Amino acid sequence: MNRPVLDEKAKGVYVITVTPFTDEGSLDLESTDRVIDFYLEKGADGLTVLGVMGEAPKLTAEESAQYVKRVLDRVKGRIPTIVGVSSPGYAAMKELSDRVMDLGAAGVMVGPAATVRTDDQAYSYYEMVAETLGGKTPFCVQDHPLAYSVQLPAPVLLKIFRNIPSAVMLKHEDYPGPGLAKLAALRAAKDARRISILAGNGGGLFLPEELSRGADGAMTGFGYPEMMVGVCKAHAAGDIERAHDLFDAYLPLARYEQQSAAGLAVRKYMLQKRGAIASAAIRKPGPKLSPADIADIDRLIARQEKRLRELG
Amino acid sequence: MNRPVLDEKAKGVYVITVTPFTDEGSLDLESTDRVIDFYLEKGADGLTVLGVMGEAPKLTAEESAQYVKRVLDRVKGRIPTIVGVSSPGYAAMKELSDRVMDLGAAGVMVGPAATVRTDDQAYSYYEMVAETLGGKTPFCVQDHPLAYSVQLPAPVLLKIFRNIPSAVMLKHEDYPGPGLAKLAALRAAKDARRISILAGNGGGLFLPEELSRGADGAMTGFGYPEMMVGVCKAHAAGDIERAHDLFDAYLPLARYEQQSAAGLAVRKYMLQKRGAIASAAIRKPGPKLSPADIADIDRLIARQEKRLRELG
Amino acid sequence: MNRPVLDEKAKGVYVITVTPFTDEGSLDLESTDRVIDFYLEKGADGLTVLGVMGEAPKLTAEESAQYVKRVLDRVKGRIPTIVGVSSPGYAAMKELSDRVMDLGAAGVMVGPAATVRTDDQAYSYYEMVAETLGGKTPFCVQDHPLAYSVQLPAPVLLKIFRNIPSAVMLKHEDYPGPGLAKLAALRAAKDARRISILAGNGGGLFLPEELSRGADGAMTGFGYPEMMVGVCKAHAAGDIERAHDLFDAYLPLARYEQQSAAGLAVRKYMLQKRGAIASAAIRKPGPKLSPADIADIDRLIARQEKRLRELG
Amino acid sequence: MNRPVLDEKAKGVYVITVTPFTDEGSLDLESTDRVIDFYLEKGADGLTVLGVMGEAPKLTAEESAQYVKRVLDRVKGRIPTIVGVSSPGYAAMKELSDRVMDLGAAGVMVGPAATVRTDDQAYSYYEMVAETLGGKTPFCVQDHPLAYSVQLPAPVLLKIFRNIPSAVMLKHEDYPGPGLAKLAALRAAKDARRISILAGNGGGLFLPEELSRGADGAMTGFGYPEMMVGVCKAHAAGDIERAHDLFDAYLPLARYEQQSAAGLAVRKYMLQKRGAIASAAIRKPGPKLSPADIADIDRLIARQEKRLRELG
Repeated sequence: MNRPVLDEKAKGVYVITVTPFTDEGSLDLESTDRVIDFYLEKGADGLTVLGVMGEAPKLTAEESAQYVKRVLDRVKGRIPTIVGVSSPGYAAMKELSDRVMDLGAAGVMVGPAATVRTDDQAYSYYEMVAETLGGKTPFCVQDHPLAYSVQLPAPVLLKIFRNIPSAVMLKHEDYPGPGLAKLAALRAAKDARRISILAGNGGGLFLPEELSRGADGAMTGFGYPEMMVGVCKAHAAGDIERAHDLFDAYLPLARYEQQSAAGLAVRKYMLQKRGAIASAAIRKPGPKLSPADIADIDRLIARQEKRLRELG
Repeated sequence: MNRPVLDEKAKGVYVITVTPFTDEGSLDLESTDRVIDFYLEKGADGLTVLGVMGEAPKLTAEESAQYVKRVLDRVKGRIPTIVGVSSPGYAAMKELSDRVMDLGAAGVMVGPAATVRTDDQAYSYYEMVAETLGGKTPFCVQDHPLAYSVQLPAPVLLKIFRNIPSAVMLKHEDYPGPGLAKLAALRAAKDARRISILAGNGGGLFLPEELSRGADGAMTGFGYPEMMVGVCKAHAAGDIERAHDLFDAYLPLARYEQQSAAGLAVRKYMLQKRGAIASAAIRKPGPKLSPADIADIDRLIARQEKRLRELG
Repeated sequence: MNRPVLDEKAKGVYVITVTPFTDEGSLDLESTDRVIDFYLEKGADGLTVLGVMGEAPKLTAEESAQYVKRVLDRVKGRIPTIVGVSSPGYAAMKELSDRVMDLGAAGVMVGPAATVRTDDQAYSYYEMVAETLGGKTPFCVQDHPLAYSVQLPAPVLLKIFRNIPSAVMLKHEDYPGPGLAKLAALRAAKDARRISILAGNGGGLFLPEELSRGADGAMTGFGYPEMMVGVCKAHAAGDIERAHDLFDAYLPLARYEQQSAAGLAVRKYMLQKRGAIASAAIRKPGPKLSPADIADIDRLIARQEKRLRELG
Repeated sequence: MNRPVLDEKAKGVYVITVTPFTDEGSLDLESTDRVIDFYLEKGADGLTVLGVMGEAPKLTAEESAQYVKRVLDRVKGRIPTIVGVSSPGYAAMKELSDRVMDLGAAGVMVGPAATVRTDDQAYSYYEMVAETLGGKTPFCVQDHPLAYSVQLPAPVLLKIFRNIPSAVMLKHEDYPGPGLAKLAALRAAKDARRISILAGNGGGLFLPEELSRGADGAMTGFGYPEMMVGVCKAHAAGDIERAHDLFDAYLPLARYEQQSAAGLAVRKYMLQKRGAIASAAIRKPGPKLSPADIADIDRLIARQEKRLRELG
């Protein structure tokens, strides 16, 4: 099988996939095929599976492997797939990483352990991650203080990327935080190794500005991935105003998805409505949408379609 | 002096004021007059001063009193002014509250002490607040977990409002959190006392939906208060689509203001640009905008003006 | 096989086991046998495995099962064994729980999910836990805010135990927090169901006082389990001063074990020195003792032995 | 007035003072005199006022000034007095610092702002503190992650002390955390400026070990300051076993004081019982002791007296 390998040149839109479940809460592998096809049709340049928004912690070890295998079998190496392997222990991280790399993953993604508190600890942690993964498995550093309660300041990230060759990508989501300023600092640093930075502050709510500061693309999972694809393309073509026009048309809905703990339920509802998955169910424990939520979303979708027609 | 008193019927837009400083970092009382006039011109129904976004913790006790007096002297009772009096101790809370009520404030606002952890503690805290304030001073409960790291679940809020007559208003900003679901639960509860709820989730980023769920208005400080005023008026008039049209036109800029720790710097830059304050300076410690930030904002303002012209 | 089942009458000392590793970091099953024998010799009334101090999160799923099986095979049902099955998702919790109950565990222990924030959520979480576990698996509620960042106030615990028959035990470790006051409140509550409460505030640093407030025993893992056993016995015999004498003799060392993030390394060093495990190694990521730490511990052990001889 | 000035050579026991209130909650200035006399009689080498345990945040600005003046008037320059001036803003910090230095304080103490998250921010914060205080006011850096939720790793502290001459002392209380390891690292660092380090991990629960790692003394407020004084003297005289004997005799009670949120209530109860203050009242909001708590303390005091008699 053709098997892409993650490297520093990665760019474009890496869609964070949802994990489809049936209404009863079991893995829905047919919907897995369908949603992967959907992401490919909408122009995804890569996929990221088993992220927090993919409900990874709710899967059993066996289910995780089953799901990743199904995704990789469906993708057939057409685009790179990154697998989230963050874990409190290196043993479990290595086990999952080895397994998914054997199955054909392009690389893995690792967020900092909850015990990391200082700059030195953060750097040492990623040194140990690289050693654990074996030096040959390329990995993406996930910078997401809201999820991990750990800060990865610019000097630490620069040191990681300068010294660890298998660290090839940064998923940058320092929100609310320095956000754009940190992204700019990473790009402006002298002697910095040029790695791939995919942005996702606030779930993609700052995409046009992130691209202007030097992001190579986006890694997020908004239910309309064509927004990210369109914005990235317009931006790459130098048509900044067009990038903003597109972005603004989707913004009311994208904002709504970030509204609350129910964000994933909003995302799955949109994907179900678009035919990409059979059920919007979230595995327990998880939130449910109220009729008023659904009315909100339906209104926002209708307004979005109207606005997109106006834009042409 | 005519002196409005806060009660359960409060509605509309309560603008959270900025505290203007000179470039050198001292209180700018002339700009204080100017920005109050600006808020009044834009249609504010009330003001909230000495909030977190008003840099209250950076003022000395003397400066706080000086600033509040200046605001109240300028407002001359035309609209109600609420003063933030949250404090780790009841003694300081009472001192400031008594002082500002004497000066003509309409009521005060109190967030939970950082030591509050359980439902019972939260309720007891507000019981003690009411006793401290003396029973005659109407107050607004500030529900803002991101700032206070304290949860105020719906059952606790309902109990507070049922039992404490001087608790007349809720500033609701449970974001990211249950957000709209909590607002809806408060309004749907049986036997609930009907108090005023002013919303500000995500700094106003969910205003149309909050109004639909029963908010009486907004309490936030976005640099274009006419947005909140316009959205509330259109909504009150039943023109929901118009409310969304207006909201969407301002959303790209409103979102940018919420982007990061630099949010207040963005807000002050807008107010300075609009002539409402002389300097955009934030008192130290605080962030500064980069040229790239300013370029972003200027672009967003230009796009916003264009969009507003299209809307008519 | 004889197989004890956890119920509300459980009392005495449940030792939280360490998970022995070789110096190279692999599971040491021979030391597992040895340390279990050690705990039995020292008078353990029960065991708790796969707790946080058992390095559970660092084990792979396969290793967890292997370790639990080894422990249960060694214990041969002589005393009850509780297995920690806390998990971000119910599916993994059920899978592990079913597996260990089949192997002969007496019950399981579950801490609250990190997403729990309010009283209602905490209660609902445990309702769902009971449903997930199937109603027949007895479980222990782990109240440990320092580890889980979740509060379980007394009213919530009382409601859980009143309504959920399979919740039969509380591991109480609300430290630093209400601690003794909460324990007393649980025992004093009217209409409360009488369940087993095993205490472990500060790793056992308040054992005599906890017993006085109504704890049925201790659940903690101090390297000298005979201290907990002796204190509980003296207390049960009504010899409170003797209980304190014993406790005080061990206190300087017990306190040292709680000194820092290196607590588990201190515990394993003591167990290795006592011949209970072959290596004091902690699986990465984890701390190491310095020569100065070891000198401290050796001094404290010598002083402890002297003091115990004085006490007779 | 003779007026000691804080410098790098400070050593011994700096007692963190309580702030006495009457049962009705007002400042008790007569008890202030009495407790200062008490601390001096017990051998305090210095005092620290307006710390968190001094209920500083509950005082009004006017009360703070009144209290500090009373303390300084009573001390009459016999020993140095440090005043806590931590504040969210530099303006208030400067105001209080200037005021207390004018009144005769020997120096001030500053903990990190809650906004500090990275190593660079922590260093910059203290650079700005030094500038704010004016370069001539000597200050103590308070490292207390449990209270401030901010980490000050060893490299940051070394940089602060290397570059900022007016930073002359560290109050070290990184607990639970690296604790002793960090203290040792600070002392072992090459090219480090030799500043004063006063220790207080866990409220003094690790004093003998902290002295062995290079602490110059203690800064904490245990109700029996003669313990800290005795331990420091025995240690300085090279009688390590005697230092431990003394420490162990007080440990059961010292541990109890650290047991919970009620720690300050325990401390004030002991001071009242010893005649050092008229009322054990804590200003609201604050905890109260139960009869069972008081019985515990009385038992521990009796046992402590017996043990001290045995030791001679």
